[in-house]
This record gives sequence, C-alpha cells and structure tokens, in this order.
Amino acid sequence: MDRLQVLDKGYVRLVGVMGSDLTIVNSARVSYDKQKAEMDSKDERLINFLIREGHTSPLRHASLQFEVYAPLMVARQWWKYVVGSDHTMDAWNESSRRYISEDEQFYIPAPTEWRSKPENSKQGSGETLKTAIGNKFTKALMQYVEEGEQLYNFALLNDIAPEQARLFLPAYGMYVRWYWTASLQSVLHFLDQRLGHDAQAEIQDYAIAVDAYTKAHFPAVHKAWQEHRK
Amino acid sequence: MDRLQVLDKGYVRLVGVMGSDLTIVNSARVSYDKQKAEMDSKDERLINFLIREGHTSPLRHASLQFEVYAPLMVARQWWKYVVGSDHTMDAWNESSRRYISEDEQFYIPAPTEWRSKPENSKQGSGETLKTAIGNKFTKALMQYVEEGEQLYNFALLNDIAPEQARLFLPAYGMYVRWYWTASLQSVLHFLDQRLGHDAQAEIQDYAIAVDAYTKAHFPAVHKAWQEHRK
Amino acid sequence: MDRLQVLDKGYVRLVGVMGSDLTIVNSARVSYDKQKAEMDSKDERLINFLIREGHTSPLRHASLQFEVYAPLMVARQWWKYVVGSDHTMDAWNESSRRYISEDEQFYIPAPTEWRSKPENSKQGSGETLKTAIGNKFTKALMQYVEEGEQLYNFALLNDIAPEQARLFLPAYGMYVRWYWTASLQSVLHFLDQRLGHDAQAEIQDYAIAVDAYTKAHFPAVHKAWQEHRK
Amino acid sequence: MDRLQVLDKGYVRLVGVMGSDLTIVNSARVSYDKQKAEMDSKDERLINFLIREGHTSPLRHASLQFEVYAPLMVARQWWKYVVGSDHTMDAWNESSRRYISEDEQFYIPAPTEWRSKPENSKQGSGETLKTAIGNKFTKALMQYVEEGEQLYNFALLNDIAPEQARLFLPAYGMYVRWYWTASLQSVLHFLDQRLGHDAQAEIQDYAIAVDAYTKAHFPAVHKAWQEHRK
Repeated sequence: MDRLQVLDKGYVRLVGVMGSDLTIVNSARVSYDKQKAEMDSKDERLINFLIREGHTSPLRHASLQFEVYAPLMVARQWWKYVVGSDHTMDAWNESSRRYISEDEQFYIPAPTEWRSKPENSKQGSGETLKTAIGNKFTKALMQYVEEGEQLYNFALLNDIAPEQARLFLPAYGMYVRWYWTASLQSVLHFLDQRLGHDAQAEIQDYAIAVDAYTKAHFPAVHKAWQEHRK
Repeated sequence: MDRLQVLDKGYVRLVGVMGSDLTIVNSARVSYDKQKAEMDSKDERLINFLIREGHTSPLRHASLQFEVYAPLMVARQWWKYVVGSDHTMDAWNESSRRYISEDEQFYIPAPTEWRSKPENSKQGSGETLKTAIGNKFTKALMQYVEEGEQLYNFALLNDIAPEQARLFLPAYGMYVRWYWTASLQSVLHFLDQRLGHDAQAEIQDYAIAVDAYTKAHFPAVHKAWQEHRK
Repeated sequence: MDRLQVLDKGYVRLVGVMGSDLTIVNSARVSYDKQKAEMDSKDERLINFLIREGHTSPLRHASLQFEVYAPLMVARQWWKYVVGSDHTMDAWNESSRRYISEDEQFYIPAPTEWRSKPENSKQGSGETLKTAIGNKFTKALMQYVEEGEQLYNFALLNDIAPEQARLFLPAYGMYVRWYWTASLQSVLHFLDQRLGHDAQAEIQDYAIAVDAYTKAHFPAVHKAWQEHRK
Repeated sequence: MDRLQVLDKGYVRLVGVMGSDLTIVNSARVSYDKQKAEMDSKDERLINFLIREGHTSPLRHASLQFEVYAPLMVARQWWKYVVGSDHTMDAWNESSRRYISEDEQFYIPAPTEWRSKPENSKQGSGETLKTAIGNKFTKALMQYVEEGEQLYNFALLNDIAPEQARLFLPAYGMYVRWYWTASLQSVLHFLDQRLGHDAQAEIQDYAIAVDAYTKAHFPAVHKAWQEHRK
C-alpha cells in the first residue's frame, strides 16, 4: 500500500514501522528470559488477554510513522487527541503557512457530500442533504475559497507578511501536511475515538486508512482490539 | 491582575497556581530532610544554580493554569509547542466549532497593524506598512469575514451540519477559548520560544501576558531565568 | 492533616494543591463562556457524567504535590506506574544514596506482619503467618540489615565511594524520600491500580493516604470516581 | 552486533529500530512536498543545523528498542532519567521480583574495580583502590550476597510471600531485565547525561553500548550530536 487516498485531495502514507505482534509478546514476557521468534496460538491468547484486561503498556514498544495530508479541521481534531490524551509517545511535525512553500489547496465537499445537522445531538452530522442543495453550497464554497485566495495573493503582492496575509484564507478546509509518529498503543486509542460514529465523517475517513495499515502490520493485536472494543 | 487584554478581543487569565519559589527549593533539596518556610539568599543562589546548569526538573513541581482567548492561528502555534516539545506536563481543553455555543468573533488587525514581509527571512514580519495600505486591508478583511459569516449562517439555515458549515469561516483569525495547565518548566520553555523575535507578533503579545503572571508568582525563578536566557 | 504515617517509619504529606471540583467543571465547559464560582447539583451531575463516560481530560487541570517517605520497593512500584502509564503529568524528585545526606533507615515488618504466598496467584500475598514464624524473620531481617549497614560503613571507612558501597545495603526495604506532583487524573489512575487487592500490601497503605487527601480536596470527583470504579 | 556485554553478567541488545538519518531530514522538511531517498551533503548540513540550533523535534520520529540486563542501581538511575526528563517518548517494561521467574543474579565488582570517594565532589568516584582492599570487599560482598540469598530462600521455604521475602536481598546489585523503547531524541539526551564523567561508572558502561548501536544506525545524526555536545 503506497498511499491511501482520502477525501478529494488528501492521503495517508505509512512511512515506517518498528516491531510486530511478536514485539508485544516478548515485551510482556520480560520477566522470563525467553524470546519467541514466531507467533503461536499461546502468544495470540496472551495478546488477547492483555487487551481484554487493559494491560496495554507492552503496546508502547511498537511504533508507526505516518505522513498525513488533510484539511486543517481534521488536523485540529487529530492534535486535540494527541494533546488531550495521555498517550504521549507521539511526535508531530507539520508544515506551516507562515511561509510559502507550496500552493494552498482546499477541501471542497462534492454536491452529494453535504450533511444535515443531527436531530438528537449537539455535534456530528445526520443524513446527506439533497444534491440540489449540495450543488449550491459546493459552488458557493468554491467561489468563497477563490475569493480568499485572490485576497491572500493580493495581500502578498502588497508586501504583507504571509503570517498575516493568511487571515484571508478559509483555513478550516485548507490542506496541511504532517508526520505523526506514535506507539501502537496510541494508534489504537486514536482509532477508538476517531473510527466512532460520533467522530466527524472527514476524520473517520482518515482513521479508516490508519486502521488498514495497522491491521496489515499487527494482525493479532488488531484482531484482539476489535474483539474487545466497547 | 484579573484578566490581561491581548489583541482586539482576546485575553489571558490566570485561573490557578500551585507552589512558589520555595517549592522549587524544597523539591531540589529532597535528599536532605529539611523544609524551608521562607526564602533566603542561599535559596536564591540555589535557584540561580539550577537554572544556569539546566537542572530544571524541580520546576516541574509548580503548576499554573491559564484561560486563553485567542485567534486560531495563535492557538495553532501554541499547540505545536505543546505537542512538539518534550514538556508534557500540559493539559489542554478547548472550545469547538463543531457545535454552536457562542457567536463567532474574529481578529481584525487595525489599519496601523499590518506588517511587511521580512527582508532576510522566510518567516516572521518586517516593518509596519503604511496606514493607507493598512486601511485597505483592514476593510477588505472585515468584508471578507462578514461574507464568510453570512455564508456560514446561510448554510446553517439550510440545515447543513455546523461541522461542515464552518468551512466558510476564515478560521485563522477566529477566536477560540481554552484552558492550558502547565508546569513552571513548561511555561518557561514556552516563553523562551514565544517571546523571541522570530515568533509571530500576535503570539508574542500573549507570551507577554503569560510572562507577567509568571514573574508575579515566581519572582526568584523568573529573575534567574531571565539572567540565563540565551 | 499534616502528615499521614504509613508503615513503621514512612509517611505521606500533601505539599500543595491546585484547583478544586469546580476547576473540573469549568474546564469541561470551556465551549461556553461561563465561570461557576460555586458547585451545584448540575455540576455534580456533569462530574459524574465525565467520569462515567471516561472523559477524564478535564481532570488534568487540577494538580497535587506529595512528599513521600517509603521503602525502595514501594518507590519502584510507584515509578513503574509513572513510567509505564500514559498519565504523564507527573514530576518526580527523589533522594539518592549516591551521596550521604542522612542516615539510612529500613522497613522491618513486625512479627505479626509477615504474609504467606497466595494459593492461586503468582504474585501478591495470602494469609498472615503465625507470629512464631514472624518473630523469627523479623529478628533475622534486623540482624541482616544491621550486618549490611556495618559492611556499608566499613566500606566508607576504607574510602570506597558511596555509590559502590551501597551494594552492601538490603535496598528493597531502605527508605527513600521523594516529591511527586501529578494531575488529578494521574492520581486517580494511581489509586485505581494501587488500592486494588492485587497490589502489594505495603503500597496499598500508601495509596490509602493519597486517597484520604484526594477525597478531602476533591469530594465530588472522588465520589463519582468511587461510584464508577471497576 | 547481537548483544553487547556489560559488567560481569549484564548486556544491552538492540531489539528494533525505526527510521534512519533520512527520516530526520524528511520530517524536518515536511513543509516542502519532497521525499529524499538517499542522503547527500545538503542533508548532512541540515542535520548539523538542526542539532546545533537545538531544533530536535524531528529526532522524535525515529525510534529504538533495547533489551537491557543490569543491576537495579543502574535501572534506578535510568528510570530517574526517564521520569525526570521531559523526553517522554519512552516505554518501559521490566521484570519483577514479586514473583519468581528466574534465579536471582548479582553484580559483584572484581577486586580491581572498587573505586574511592572523589575528593572534590559529593557524588561520583575517584581513583581505583588498591587490589588488596578490593580483594577484601569483593569477598565480603560475595559472602553477604550469599547470606542474603540463603535467607531469601529460607523465607520462601517457610511460605513467606516472595514480595516480602525479597527484603533479604541486597537489591542494589541484583540484575533486572527490561525493554526500553525511546525516540532518537530521548536516546541522545540519555547519552548526554549518562556518558558524562559525573555519571556512575556502571551506567556509563551501559551508555557506551547504547551509543555504539545509535552510531551504527544514525551515523549522520550521531556525528552532528558529538560535534555539538557541551
């Protein structure tokens, strides 16, 4: 899997991985001077036991690094998870709009992708809206974004510092790029939160990509985690 | 100091504090079964020594809690510090635009506050621009923001979910509110970075407010820190 | 509560505290521009909801600082919690035996305090042993500790570096002193683990002292936590 | 390098590694949509710049996992680094003496390895002592350790719980085994502290082994770090 495409212009890419299901097994058995070189059914039962009982510290010995390209509103929700959570084995390096390194790109929902307000909740989304309405707002957003870009470029032309000129950009939909390195424990915690139905649909799409990579590299852990998710 | 006003509509407020200069002294002297109840010149020298030599772990035993109201672009720079730094004794709880809790407010630089691009650097700002130019962009930003708010509200009227409707907001200048709790070590590290001349002017203004509170509550530590700043 | 005595020579002391039940309520309601100055039943319900649903990030905005004097084996279990857990809003400064600052002291179980091996578990303790047996081992331990101290002092007399001489000390029972600063979230997680029946009895005694301070300063949070403990 | 032997019975083993010098380069250049597949001299200069200026957050995207077998007093100094430092991308899983999984082993300095007290410092070691004195203390320690093991085993025979019986062990010299997973940033910070001449000689020996693995896998970063060490 080279890159998994997400939304209209985004993606997730797995840059690196350290460890495997066996890493977890060996870390959990550190009291015994034994190293397994291949998984067997006893190891799978150990992994299942660890996850069922919430003894997840051995999962901190495996790491994954991702490159993500996503709208700022998705980055914000991702960051809040990293800052707000206790799972601190996370590194984050992100591009900045304070200086200009590449042309800005924006997430524009297609006419069929606009969602209604949910009925019984203060956040989240309900049903998809009619395409006629979607058409109107996709067009309006494209125009509004274009206008913002023109004002942004006009400000740059007038020698305004990029760090101030960006006030003209409708930034929630602007794509940013970052590297995220996290332990397997942290990745699963992120998935617990962001695969959930109350997560915003856009970040759920990114979580699905992260989930696919995780499952491919840690099949036994992933299986046990899925079995015991609340 | 009840609230320190920052920018056109923002502020910093100190919500709580744990410890004093003495906390640092006592934590550093844990090997000796002695508790000081008042600072003397020997304690000041110890604080000076700890900071000069970079032995800052005792600073983690004092905590400060702030409420901050600032444009999203400032919040982003603040978060990046928290996520990217190693100073993890930080908690963060922030308002969200996914549901509507209060009217949105935007940072609009005054005509005299627009800054030029710096000459010899890829980021930061140079001189202040002429007021005639500033006038034009302040007005343009006010109009663009107003247009964004109208589109946002129109989207809500059409039953679009707030989490999607916000794509219409020029979010970099939108005010958000958060609580930040950090150790004294973390606060000083934040000040090291954000009081610096290469930090964006807007976050420097917030750092000045955080600095004032820190100096008032930890005068000896603050003095030593200022003396040994690079 | 000035100091709470634990074991034969140890104690826990609350050095400082930041915040109250209200801090949690206000941090959780950051999306609304409202500050409560006094708790009411609605706030208690909010706290109960947050803890029941595991939304514990607002608990990171309150901090507690403790001074602890405990045998090294207790310190080790405490550290493992801090390192192994994800709750990183923890600071730790501890005395060191690498240089001599005060006379060493050792934990010696009384004749009635020796416990048998549990029947159905690889760790923990079972019933209390007969006093006749206890008598024998209390005495044996006192002698063995005394012999170790004599060898330690003899090594120092022969100019051996304290950092090597300490190899002669039966260190598991040796008292060490440290400062522990932690968020309320971290403190409750520590209590979850160390008040449990599978924790070693000695650290349970320290957890009981930490619990008493926590209950006194955060009564509503403590009540909700107790109600929803697994 | 399969295992690097340290002290009389200990070792360090590199279990896994994620990333290379290139990981650092690519993470630092996230603002530019470019991925390098091979290092060139420009990349080396970037690494040198990052380390010289203390911009070390990209180093958090590379991870190393070690298995360590070392005396408890070394483990304690290692833990204090992990807990006390701000470099939290660390995981730790360690064997426990609360239950018996393998026979205990002890570090016994050879007759030529005993060190004197330093003249001008409260901690650390000075010159090596005469072998005649060393002989005496090596023998005394062997006897004292043997006596402790006999008492420990006698306590177990009398059905005392292992978690209490271990009070008879001269634990500072007892070997424990653990897994340590850390970011490259954290590893270099550990080396900064523990390769230093004021670190205890025993942990310096472990740091030398960690250093060898780090140099082998991250040659450009290691070179720059060595050049700019204070």
